[in-house]
Amino acid sequence: MAKRSIVTFLSDYGLQDEFVGVCHGVMLGIKPDLRIIDIHHNILRQDVRHGAVVLQQSIKYMPEGVHLAVVDPAVGSDRRAIAVETGHGQIFVAPDNGLIVAAADECGGIRSAYELTNRSLMLSPMSQTFHGRDVFAPAAAHIANGVALEEFGPEVPVDQVVALDISEAWLHDDHLHAEVLQLDRFGNLQLNCNFKGLEQVGMVAGRTIEIRMEGHRLHVPYGISFADVEVGEFVLVEDSYEKLSLAVNKGDAAARLQAGSGSTIIVGPAVG
Amino acid sequence: MAKRSIVTFLSDYGLQDEFVGVCHGVMLGIKPDLRIIDIHHNILRQDVRHGAVVLQQSIKYMPEGVHLAVVDPAVGSDRRAIAVETGHGQIFVAPDNGLIVAAADECGGIRSAYELTNRSLMLSPMSQTFHGRDVFAPAAAHIANGVALEEFGPEVPVDQVVALDISEAWLHDDHLHAEVLQLDRFGNLQLNCNFKGLEQVGMVAGRTIEIRMEGHRLHVPYGISFADVEVGEFVLVEDSYEKLSLAVNKGDAAARLQAGSGSTIIVGPAVG
Amino acid sequence: MAKRSIVTFLSDYGLQDEFVGVCHGVMLGIKPDLRIIDIHHNILRQDVRHGAVVLQQSIKYMPEGVHLAVVDPAVGSDRRAIAVETGHGQIFVAPDNGLIVAAADECGGIRSAYELTNRSLMLSPMSQTFHGRDVFAPAAAHIANGVALEEFGPEVPVDQVVALDISEAWLHDDHLHAEVLQLDRFGNLQLNCNFKGLEQVGMVAGRTIEIRMEGHRLHVPYGISFADVEVGEFVLVEDSYEKLSLAVNKGDAAARLQAGSGSTIIVGPAVG
Repeated sequence: MAKRSIVTFLSDYGLQDEFVGVCHGVMLGIKPDLRIIDIHHNILRQDVRHGAVVLQQSIKYMPEGVHLAVVDPAVGSDRRAIAVETGHGQIFVAPDNGLIVAAADECGGIRSAYELTNRSLMLSPMSQTFHGRDVFAPAAAHIANGVALEEFGPEVPVDQVVALDISEAWLHDDHLHAEVLQLDRFGNLQLNCNFKGLEQVGMVAGRTIEIRMEGHRLHVPYGISFADVEVGEFVLVEDSYEKLSLAVNKGDAAARLQAGSGSTIIVGPAVG
Repeated sequence: MAKRSIVTFLSDYGLQDEFVGVCHGVMLGIKPDLRIIDIHHNILRQDVRHGAVVLQQSIKYMPEGVHLAVVDPAVGSDRRAIAVETGHGQIFVAPDNGLIVAAADECGGIRSAYELTNRSLMLSPMSQTFHGRDVFAPAAAHIANGVALEEFGPEVPVDQVVALDISEAWLHDDHLHAEVLQLDRFGNLQLNCNFKGLEQVGMVAGRTIEIRMEGHRLHVPYGISFADVEVGEFVLVEDSYEKLSLAVNKGDAAARLQAGSGSTIIVGPAVG
Repeated sequence: MAKRSIVTFLSDYGLQDEFVGVCHGVMLGIKPDLRIIDIHHNILRQDVRHGAVVLQQSIKYMPEGVHLAVVDPAVGSDRRAIAVETGHGQIFVAPDNGLIVAAADECGGIRSAYELTNRSLMLSPMSQTFHGRDVFAPAAAHIANGVALEEFGPEVPVDQVVALDISEAWLHDDHLHAEVLQLDRFGNLQLNCNFKGLEQVGMVAGRTIEIRMEGHRLHVPYGISFADVEVGEFVLVEDSYEKLSLAVNKGDAAARLQAGSGSTIIVGPAVG
């Protein structure tokens, strides 16, 4: 396998302890000239769906490399560890719990998958609680070094790789039932819905939309940018990932609505 | 333009989402051997002045490179995006909102400025909400790759680059009216005033100073280091950026006074 | 001294200000091709013992390099700054306050130590409050560049390097009096005790243990992995550093018990 100079790394390890730093140390110990891009490590704890959403959205901005992703609530159980190659030649290394499937779909889909069982490519002794350090980080670095996926263990039929459904907003009469996928530092609420979904309920740019969420009922314009409304006003925009995002110009929509990842929201035409 | 191996990066994106990681991915996609120094990403949200203060203080510790700074409350409006070269040959890439002017002054002042309008040097499609990813990070990486500033767009007259006033403490009778520029992790409060300002009110090292702040009235010695006072005592020191800093030896001045960035403080001679 | 391509970096600087970024800038200014591994920067403020515990546990996962560690409550006093070489050829740069001694012991023990006094290898002017930037980071980068330790200042006899006692759990009758060394992002509480300590009180895998902590009395099984108990149940496991760790499967033990670093805990056989 061709060598790769970059590993990207996404996890729910946070930055308040040494987990991420230790994984970096392990990888640079195996491949000292590796470059590591920390996509982000503040995935909600053990929330595979949140990790999958972020990885799917981020992956198209990442250079060719090995993509290490660890959100692993079942560490120490018999869940598989896998490495997969996609149609476009990207490699993902992760627990087999659905975390990387949507991201792999953005890269041509999974073309082949291998279970990580070869102990000689893991740290020894291997803990039962920190496979990021002992299994996944070493695998990512060895693959970047050119070790073939076949060396890691038996092939896994592609249709046996664990899938994960990232739900999309659904239409009921003239309303969309949507959900918050994630919020960013600015309090913008990203919905599981794009502009096409909005068109389904008859919305076009400039029209006002009614939003019901966490006990609030808001009339909100659909804008192109935050600056289309006054400071402190709500606006629904297409965000930088082509998802709808509920924002407040120079404010914090999540704080105003006390909403967060997973909050439900109903989007429909403003009446009267 | 000569290639540069380093991009420094300051923003208000925080580390709780993937914004910073995605910008890293974009830059390494354009220039795979780039080194990125994250100056810091916890600038107060949309607080251009805070970003300007931190960048001004940090820049002299940075190697030659391209300096990417994004605090951009007006993203999506018609504010300009710019790249500037300084008298000492440093390059800054930022929104044209004053963010980088004080830092550029530390590097010989702005010698030339160009607006970033060339779409072929941006990501496509370009979002209206995340120019860090789509405009600024690509520009920084292309400049590091040797693309000339002239390639990015029309020259902007230096006197039309947006300025920003970082206020300094002012003298009234025998008192200084100062302000907290920022606080660090240890709760030390950095003031917009240096030792010369203190001399103006007749202070010399060893003398006791009266401080009024957030309803507190404190008599505080002027020391050389935190260790000049007992554990738990307040001390006014010249900090590592040659600004006055109000600290508590092995304690947290900000927590004790419930003060933060922007708090006002009156510094004068201790009487009686 | 042979050049080294990697500096690891541990501190209590946090990531909410520019301290870490400025140290990176200083090091890359001295050695532009350096790779820096941030072990972690959220050591409890000025808590030398916490830093020592994390560094000791992390160091064996780090590649050969220069190991920069800064937790420095006495900055500006007359505490020494030192660089040491270990029996296995690792280099540590730190304040001489015990921070790196346990980690050095993992690397063959301190073989030689030198005080950092040579001003020409520090930044100038040198502040009294930020020696990470002005003294330690420059030293680490110069050593990575091949500057010999002897160049930095006078040799310090190894037995005069400041030691630090990281207490271990102690046995009283059939109980262990233990302490929480640290907690991770998942709320797992790492104890200052390993499996051998548990055997001393007659425990073997599968047996139930009684834990008294912060007013709680729990009967907890000793398991191999988190998944050995039901979701939401407590379990005592050997963690990835071969320490005992009190965890909740897919939950947060620290939050449930309102415990943290330094909390005391009594571990004994479950009776009745």
